[in-house]
Amino acid sequence: MTDTPTMLQPGATIGILGGGQLGRMLSVAAARLGFRTHIFEPGANPPAGHVADAVTTAPYEDEAALLAFAASVDVITYEFENIPTQALDTLEAHRPIRPNRQALAVSQDRLVEKAFLSDLGLLTAPFAAVDDEVDLAEAIEEIGTPAILKTRRFGYDGKGQSRLRAPEDAAAALADMAGAPAILEGFVEFSHEVSVIAARGIDGEVACFDPGENVHKDGILATTTVPAPLSAAQRTDAVLLAAKILNALKYVGVMGVELFVTPKGLIVNEIAPRVHNSGHWTQNGCAVDQFEQHIRAVAGWPLGDGKRHSDVVMENLIGDDVLRVPGIARESGAAIHLYGKAEAKPGRKMGHVNRVKG
Amino acid sequence: MTDTPTMLQPGATIGILGGGQLGRMLSVAAARLGFRTHIFEPGANPPAGHVADAVTTAPYEDEAALLAFAASVDVITYEFENIPTQALDTLEAHRPIRPNRQALAVSQDRLVEKAFLSDLGLLTAPFAAVDDEVDLAEAIEEIGTPAILKTRRFGYDGKGQSRLRAPEDAAAALADMAGAPAILEGFVEFSHEVSVIAARGIDGEVACFDPGENVHKDGILATTTVPAPLSAAQRTDAVLLAAKILNALKYVGVMGVELFVTPKGLIVNEIAPRVHNSGHWTQNGCAVDQFEQHIRAVAGWPLGDGKRHSDVVMENLIGDDVLRVPGIARESGAAIHLYGKAEAKPGRKMGHVNRVKG
Repeated sequence: MTDTPTMLQPGATIGILGGGQLGRMLSVAAARLGFRTHIFEPGANPPAGHVADAVTTAPYEDEAALLAFAASVDVITYEFENIPTQALDTLEAHRPIRPNRQALAVSQDRLVEKAFLSDLGLLTAPFAAVDDEVDLAEAIEEIGTPAILKTRRFGYDGKGQSRLRAPEDAAAALADMAGAPAILEGFVEFSHEVSVIAARGIDGEVACFDPGENVHKDGILATTTVPAPLSAAQRTDAVLLAAKILNALKYVGVMGVELFVTPKGLIVNEIAPRVHNSGHWTQNGCAVDQFEQHIRAVAGWPLGDGKRHSDVVMENLIGDDVLRVPGIARESGAAIHLYGKAEAKPGRKMGHVNRVKG
Repeated sequence: MTDTPTMLQPGATIGILGGGQLGRMLSVAAARLGFRTHIFEPGANPPAGHVADAVTTAPYEDEAALLAFAASVDVITYEFENIPTQALDTLEAHRPIRPNRQALAVSQDRLVEKAFLSDLGLLTAPFAAVDDEVDLAEAIEEIGTPAILKTRRFGYDGKGQSRLRAPEDAAAALADMAGAPAILEGFVEFSHEVSVIAARGIDGEVACFDPGENVHKDGILATTTVPAPLSAAQRTDAVLLAAKILNALKYVGVMGVELFVTPKGLIVNEIAPRVHNSGHWTQNGCAVDQFEQHIRAVAGWPLGDGKRHSDVVMENLIGDDVLRVPGIARESGAAIHLYGKAEAKPGRKMGHVNRVKG
């Protein structure tokens, strides 16, 4: 099978950094297109390893393991953005990494990300860099309260965040950052949150899935519903805005773009340079899902068009939610996706269910 | 997670005999429900091995390998019916095999299968056992020509078959059997062929997917289209007939039931005690596909309802058809499924595409 010279041929191997549920679902999508996968993951017994052709268990500091991994694959992608820079340098010297380093650099740091989005002319929450109590006092002065202090790096699912109800919370919030560089973000009044799962191919083509409405609980995504309640104009705005971000980064792969819907327009909350929890509905709503879309981009294939054939409500199964699976298994139109994790700890994403409507 | 005592818990391991594309897609479905899989396959580098937790490469005569395999799994299923009896005896002493031995015994032998179906009161093509030229002469006398002489065992995709246009073809057809016990089957006048993918759970519940219309080319399935052109009465007949077969066998798992549509009613062509090529459309037409349905049954889970949310045309990609994949990848609504096979030999099933209609 050949077509354009960029198309990775079936039988080739895609290397995936990270062995969690996103890597697991990427691995299955890659197999569906005839590729093999090789997972690189420091933790033992990664969920992605159950459905991969090869697994390397090693820390990101193990240069020999990184080199052997790179030598065994044709292209490298990742399921999370917080990969140590040194490891990326080692890998990139030998194999292409998609999405590219710029996308990682932007999304690894909340301050860089917000500045990048502002420079593109997109709306974001008001923000200011906070390295110490002087910065924080100035930031509170400028942005006001309530506000949220967040570490610039390594935050996810509400971790590394501290809420300031009033200026008096400043000291406690700063203490929560444990000395890490931070960013103060102002509150945004929004009616609801939506996200766009957008993809850009190696040829610059962009395709977006229908925006979904996200509802969070305890800082973790609880449900995504498609279609989201948006006007036609908002829908167009969301897609154009996502395309602008991907084009600016010369991005190759799938990105999750979280948006607040406000009377002033769509405000970008966060971007994630990878497949995204709020795109899991595509597995049962589209012929080509976000995981395959990402693999297509990374492999230099043409993108799928992302057309939705069914309405879907995605519900995350967190911690003990997984005990409800026997009941869910009896529901009509419920597609269960479990991640193969051994222990159902509180707050741990154990799986999700896509409820298909007609 | 617990419910009924029969339900295999996520984290358990399902053993799969056979590492081809059916085993591959079963393995992915098992992972989706949180199970691990262990593939047993004599051939090197099996397609299912790319997405399995463990692979044993050993012949079915290797008793030690069979015992180690059985010890490592919680339940055993299979992707094809021609597993040597001795191997099944060894395995069954240690772990349950689902679907059961009776289903295998019936479907491994065309004569036993036809007799079983007749005894159930179902219509089949006229048939007679043929061990030698005297039998064949008598069978031709009874059934007439045109007719097809088939080996009783180990036939698939048109292999081990010889057509008799007239009684004079008898000697040549018998020579084609190379001494193997055979069966002469009369021709059936039919308007089209459909198949029902039926499932029976461990609790005796039966669920069927919508019948699909099958079109063959050179003796190999080319396309399956759902919905199939059937009257409401024919649709009901098809489902009741399939349920009768599964109940008679106390079957647990998915079975493919091929039917000829004739003015006299539905005639059973063949049954396959496994997931079936004509059920691949379910991957993109239903929330629970045939592979997951099979795994649910084998794992003692409740069945999915098999409801179809979209119309689908499934096309097999055989041999060089796989060269068309770059073009198919650009089609809207086309879901590609490749099997990870290295060489595209003529007649070899390399993958399939499900075209989803709205």
